[in-house]
Amino acid sequence: MPPAFRLVPTLAVSVLAVLLTGPSRDRVAAQSPDVPAINAARLRQHLEGLSAFGRPPGGTFADGVTRLAYSDADVQGRQCVMELMRAAGLQVRVDPAGNIVARREGREPALPPILIGSHIDSVPNGGHFDGPLGTLGALEVVQALADARLVTRHPIELVVWVNEEGVAYGSGLDGSRAAAGEVREAELDQVWNGVKKADAIRRLGGAPERLAQARRAPGSIHAYLELHVEQGGTLDKAGNPIGVVEGIVGIDRYEATVRGVANHAGTTPMPDRHDALLAAAQLALAVNQVVTAEPGRQVGTVGRLVVSPNAPNVVPGLVTMTIELRDLSNEKLQRLKQQVDARAAQIARETGTEITLSPTSHHEPALAAPALVVAIEQAAASAGLRSMRLPSGAGHDAQMAAGFAPMGMIFVPSVGGVSHSPKEATRWEDCARGAAVLLQAVLASDRTTVR
Amino acid sequence: MPPAFRLVPTLAVSVLAVLLTGPSRDRVAAQSPDVPAINAARLRQHLEGLSAFGRPPGGTFADGVTRLAYSDADVQGRQCVMELMRAAGLQVRVDPAGNIVARREGREPALPPILIGSHIDSVPNGGHFDGPLGTLGALEVVQALADARLVTRHPIELVVWVNEEGVAYGSGLDGSRAAAGEVREAELDQVWNGVKKADAIRRLGGAPERLAQARRAPGSIHAYLELHVEQGGTLDKAGNPIGVVEGIVGIDRYEATVRGVANHAGTTPMPDRHDALLAAAQLALAVNQVVTAEPGRQVGTVGRLVVSPNAPNVVPGLVTMTIELRDLSNEKLQRLKQQVDARAAQIARETGTEITLSPTSHHEPALAAPALVVAIEQAAASAGLRSMRLPSGAGHDAQMAAGFAPMGMIFVPSVGGVSHSPKEATRWEDCARGAAVLLQAVLASDRTTVR
Repeated sequence: MPPAFRLVPTLAVSVLAVLLTGPSRDRVAAQSPDVPAINAARLRQHLEGLSAFGRPPGGTFADGVTRLAYSDADVQGRQCVMELMRAAGLQVRVDPAGNIVARREGREPALPPILIGSHIDSVPNGGHFDGPLGTLGALEVVQALADARLVTRHPIELVVWVNEEGVAYGSGLDGSRAAAGEVREAELDQVWNGVKKADAIRRLGGAPERLAQARRAPGSIHAYLELHVEQGGTLDKAGNPIGVVEGIVGIDRYEATVRGVANHAGTTPMPDRHDALLAAAQLALAVNQVVTAEPGRQVGTVGRLVVSPNAPNVVPGLVTMTIELRDLSNEKLQRLKQQVDARAAQIARETGTEITLSPTSHHEPALAAPALVVAIEQAAASAGLRSMRLPSGAGHDAQMAAGFAPMGMIFVPSVGGVSHSPKEATRWEDCARGAAVLLQAVLASDRTTVR
Repeated sequence: MPPAFRLVPTLAVSVLAVLLTGPSRDRVAAQSPDVPAINAARLRQHLEGLSAFGRPPGGTFADGVTRLAYSDADVQGRQCVMELMRAAGLQVRVDPAGNIVARREGREPALPPILIGSHIDSVPNGGHFDGPLGTLGALEVVQALADARLVTRHPIELVVWVNEEGVAYGSGLDGSRAAAGEVREAELDQVWNGVKKADAIRRLGGAPERLAQARRAPGSIHAYLELHVEQGGTLDKAGNPIGVVEGIVGIDRYEATVRGVANHAGTTPMPDRHDALLAAAQLALAVNQVVTAEPGRQVGTVGRLVVSPNAPNVVPGLVTMTIELRDLSNEKLQRLKQQVDARAAQIARETGTEITLSPTSHHEPALAAPALVVAIEQAAASAGLRSMRLPSGAGHDAQMAAGFAPMGMIFVPSVGGVSHSPKEATRWEDCARGAAVLLQAVLASDRTTVR
């Protein structure tokens, strides 16, 4: 571990931070000395510390990070986080899926824990906030509680989920899927970069042969709360520091195949053509029209399109393309798909082509628990922060957690909406604000029954 | 050489052919014994003979041919053709570019020759008619003249052009470009399949160091006439046996680059997107609309389109696509391009993308000599055959020949418009009809001054 990440005693850090930036910026929502408050400088120091693992050689913080799940950088980053957790007085274990779990006991041992956390793996050339903010923000919450000598009724468990991004082994959400009991046996035999997933999990200290024991039974968790950067531009554009996630959208993906007739681009008169690309172009525009024709935050994307034979002098004979629809409502997803189907049939008729759509994947929407949505809104309000409700268009571990716990999710602004890029950024004060809202939401859910 | 290609004396073939199919089918346009007439059976036998070189192992005629320029199959096919030429009493030479030239002297030694022929190289998995029909149809013309003991005023030269298809070394029309003086020195250093083009030409008996001597000076050829299969479906659809080519279309190619902003397909709201694929789809449709909006036989094609990053869950940030326009008129090509430019600018404005079009190649239209268009029409009429004028949408050696000689071109129907495929077919009677029209057109141009 580089010297920068040696743990400085909390008090010293706080004093330093106060000297540097003044107490009002550092101790977000510090209404009185007994109320626990986020230490913004400590949170920043932890984020900067973790950022070194997976940094490009010779690079700086601004050069982003490549900390792929199960890689050396991931292993080292996890060590860094576990040392921070232990230094904060927590009991740390690695569950059979490789998830890091750190526990702080509560006053009433019979109560189920409140689970908070996120992930630390990144995409290639990713940023420092997608995942780490929720992971170290959760750590900051328990440190703030400890600073205030406050013990909650429920135990608090911090979690660092394995392989959220899915760059390694493709599927993603590995750790939270294991907790939800949604990892198939066969997945453990998948090979990526020459390594079986089972062996990759062992590298992290997991025990794939006991994967079923990583499962969290429904009802065994009081509440799951995750702080995350938005990865979109809605909050930043609205100048709104806190997003209250209504749910994680469902995702329906289809593969559309457009069959025309490949032919000589010089000798085939225009009226005789069955140009698959012209039909595909109409279909791509139709998807956009269908999705934007009704109010709401649904999105639809043709992201991949491949032409065959793809030569300048040949009328395209075949196009395959993906159609992806996302929304919080399954019913709306199905309605949009029916409209796309109708348009595809019409385009096929008019262009003399054959168009088929086949489903390739379906991810259910995962709705946040209404009580936690309200709790997060109230937490923001009590900290004097404006908030807005919004869906999460991206997938998160929270969507799997929703399968076994009441789920709530807090977004903070991504500058310019940029993520999965070294340019990914969230202002330090917004990081602290997000952690403060997480803290208040934990305290609120600790007082209540969450449904 | 397989036994099937040993040369049977012409008389025996004719007698055999008469016995098999009857004189009226065999001797197309045989009005009287002194008028030269095409021997349909001989022409078919020659085409079937040549078809063996480049046939897939164990295949039949129906399995097509792969006789790439400069390959072993090409060398063997050329030997076959040269033996047929010599057996027909012609003087055969190979010019410095590798073109086969066989000469039959005329009555007036001072006159420039009439040049007739085509090519015998094919695309991979090509057919037996694209090239060979014009090559062996030209041979049949001089054999028909010899059968009738008729000597023309002008010498007749048969030509087999090298590498028309351009599968080898990419550019194509190698032999006819050399004759037009349009091969650059640097081309000889091009390497394909590990062989320099200069060495490939030597394999064929050419002398690349004297390539300039392959040039045919403007005015040195009385007329150039080429018989070819249409490679399109216009004649077949119209039930018309003879196409009179008005010219070979000009081809303008552009590369369009559409720059949007790649973004997360889940977190980027629809109004915030700058989707390069949606803009590209509009541009592809606009090209089609511009080209079909005015009368005429112009064609326009977006044949190649590549999306980046091309992932189902990413809003496309970049699209590159080809735009190809073909027409006999340069003026029309430029007008169409201006309209495409205007539409591209409008689409870029409306979609918040940046669209640039840059020219990648320009091939001049090559017009047939009006006198030869008329001569071919009259030749068809005199043989009792309907004909129609049409442009050639595909490139041919004739377009280079138009640079040094009055050029005329005869098309015969491709069944179903199919070419560059083992399924390429032209009915045997249509082959003979085409050769008969070529014969009559040669005789007509022999009598006249061609301009």
